[in-house]
Amino acid sequence: MHTLDVALGERAYPIHIGSSLLAREALLLPHIRGRQAVVVSNETVAPLYLDVLLATLARGGVTAIPVILPDGEAYKTWEILNRIFDALLLNKCERNTTLIALGGGVIGDMGGFAAACYQRGMPFVQVPTTLLAQVDSSVGGKTAINHPLGKNMIGAFYQPQMVLADVATLDTLPDRELRAGLAEVIKYGLIRDPEFLVWIEANLEHLLARDRAALIYAIERSCRNKAEVVAADERESGERALLNLGHTFGHAIETGLGYGVWLHGEAVAAGTMIAAHLSNLLGWLDDKDVARMGKLFERCALPLRSPRLGVARYMELMSHDKKVLDGRLRLVLLEQLGRAVLTEQASESQIAQAIERGCT
Amino acid sequence: MHTLDVALGERAYPIHIGSSLLAREALLLPHIRGRQAVVVSNETVAPLYLDVLLATLARGGVTAIPVILPDGEAYKTWEILNRIFDALLLNKCERNTTLIALGGGVIGDMGGFAAACYQRGMPFVQVPTTLLAQVDSSVGGKTAINHPLGKNMIGAFYQPQMVLADVATLDTLPDRELRAGLAEVIKYGLIRDPEFLVWIEANLEHLLARDRAALIYAIERSCRNKAEVVAADERESGERALLNLGHTFGHAIETGLGYGVWLHGEAVAAGTMIAAHLSNLLGWLDDKDVARMGKLFERCALPLRSPRLGVARYMELMSHDKKVLDGRLRLVLLEQLGRAVLTEQASESQIAQAIERGCT
Repeated sequence: MHTLDVALGERAYPIHIGSSLLAREALLLPHIRGRQAVVVSNETVAPLYLDVLLATLARGGVTAIPVILPDGEAYKTWEILNRIFDALLLNKCERNTTLIALGGGVIGDMGGFAAACYQRGMPFVQVPTTLLAQVDSSVGGKTAINHPLGKNMIGAFYQPQMVLADVATLDTLPDRELRAGLAEVIKYGLIRDPEFLVWIEANLEHLLARDRAALIYAIERSCRNKAEVVAADERESGERALLNLGHTFGHAIETGLGYGVWLHGEAVAAGTMIAAHLSNLLGWLDDKDVARMGKLFERCALPLRSPRLGVARYMELMSHDKKVLDGRLRLVLLEQLGRAVLTEQASESQIAQAIERGCT
Repeated sequence: MHTLDVALGERAYPIHIGSSLLAREALLLPHIRGRQAVVVSNETVAPLYLDVLLATLARGGVTAIPVILPDGEAYKTWEILNRIFDALLLNKCERNTTLIALGGGVIGDMGGFAAACYQRGMPFVQVPTTLLAQVDSSVGGKTAINHPLGKNMIGAFYQPQMVLADVATLDTLPDRELRAGLAEVIKYGLIRDPEFLVWIEANLEHLLARDRAALIYAIERSCRNKAEVVAADERESGERALLNLGHTFGHAIETGLGYGVWLHGEAVAAGTMIAAHLSNLLGWLDDKDVARMGKLFERCALPLRSPRLGVARYMELMSHDKKVLDGRLRLVLLEQLGRAVLTEQASESQIAQAIERGCT
């Protein structure tokens, strides 16, 4: 097992990465107060991993109340979030009851937001079961639900007590989900870790074949990158925004197509290609760099092309982006492979041109 | 104008208390970024004070978008909160747009919770227009909405940038609201400021007659008490719970009768009398102390008697209280007038007996 720390002072917490961690009560029980906990999961993950988690808790004398939600980004809504609140109140959960999120990014985001809001904050543990959640969304405390007008628009910065990334849970992950998770792994290489980018290119077949050692390495290195960025800028006043490479375009794709039509990682891959085209138009990336990025996403069978929503619709959707400042869209672009920057330098016509390129 | 500071390090902020402050752009404008702000108010307050606030902002070149909600505790729900999110998104409000809450406790709680959640946190200014909000709910960062099973169950600790308490707005406050606010003023005397309790007893007629100097003194001293407690214990791990004298019983009354049937301050007054009876049963307050408390609430025409919901129903409603720990109800009681304590010492039968006394 590997353990990293997210250095956030009084809100610091460990990320444990390894195999069959769900069964290790010594990791979980120190974070449970009293004899009751709540496990939020979904209809896909619960049949696979809920029992082992409940058994682990039971060995420590803890009875856990399961709250099973429907699966998918389309359910990251207030109505479904409210089911968590109903269960917490009906079961008389206290301010010190621990909420455990067992699932992918949607479950982590909703479970975390519920924990942030219930009685103004209850303890929270992340048990991510998708690659995307293990390398990205479970770390750093961003929680949210979607609004019809924009993804992740309603949420909180709320750090977990611990992240428990059990790579054994990836055995059952559908291929499409695995590939979507790789989009976020590649992101770390592109924005700040060029050596890792080279490693991914050299080891992609191992990752796609779910070689456990390769997956553990990729998860640990991704989490290390994320933990460094989050520790330096918890609430995204600067550097943290760089983690959003491809996300402004990607969120527009997700909102524009309807939540859940494309997976988040798929939208990020296609969105990252638009960012690559725009970086190219600004003279920062050369054609070879863009082709190299496309090749990598292609090997993951991730979409390189964005859906043809029309430039005007993309612009409208992106106007809700959280990085908009004083009415001006700020974008994460690449100065070179391995170095991202948050910039307003792209003109509206250049952005339009990049979207056109990315859609054809 | 009097200015107090809530000493919370990087989250520190001023409370300005005085007359006709709504018209002073020098107080407001430093907290507005860019040319757009949002004012959340209600159908009662907006016709009275929205124009003056908008004019003040306009003098600084700021256009404010009004979001007018229905008035009353019954509307402190997710559905109504969502109207704020809709307006923020439809108007393309940014993460740095300031949300100004203009109204009483309900508007402050909902506006603050919306600000806490929108894009994971936007700047927030409290402009309380009721006595209750000026002396209590606008200070300290507690925000929330109600759940059918419990009051203030879903919320956030989220500090404002500033509190602007304009006592001129109390001129239009209905008498019933004024008296409800006095319940929270009296609370500070009872829990930690016995000299203030004596002052209130001596000056109650001036307060009821809305003598401006008396009101300013009471608001400032109340806010000073609250700011001290909040600075010492922002997230209610200890001392801050003492501010909840009478609130466990009071919240049960509000939830049990249906939100908005009694005003919050009315429920707090009746709930505080139950706490007094219980403190008396424990031998901490003598009969004379209880009578003295009753006399003071009576002079405010506040209810001394709680509604007859039945002891079992009170117990059920109180089981959701945020101070419940490891299944045990903790109550704020009075060791003496001017000194509160958070305790588990009261037995269930003593609590039942105190409720019986408080209901007859």
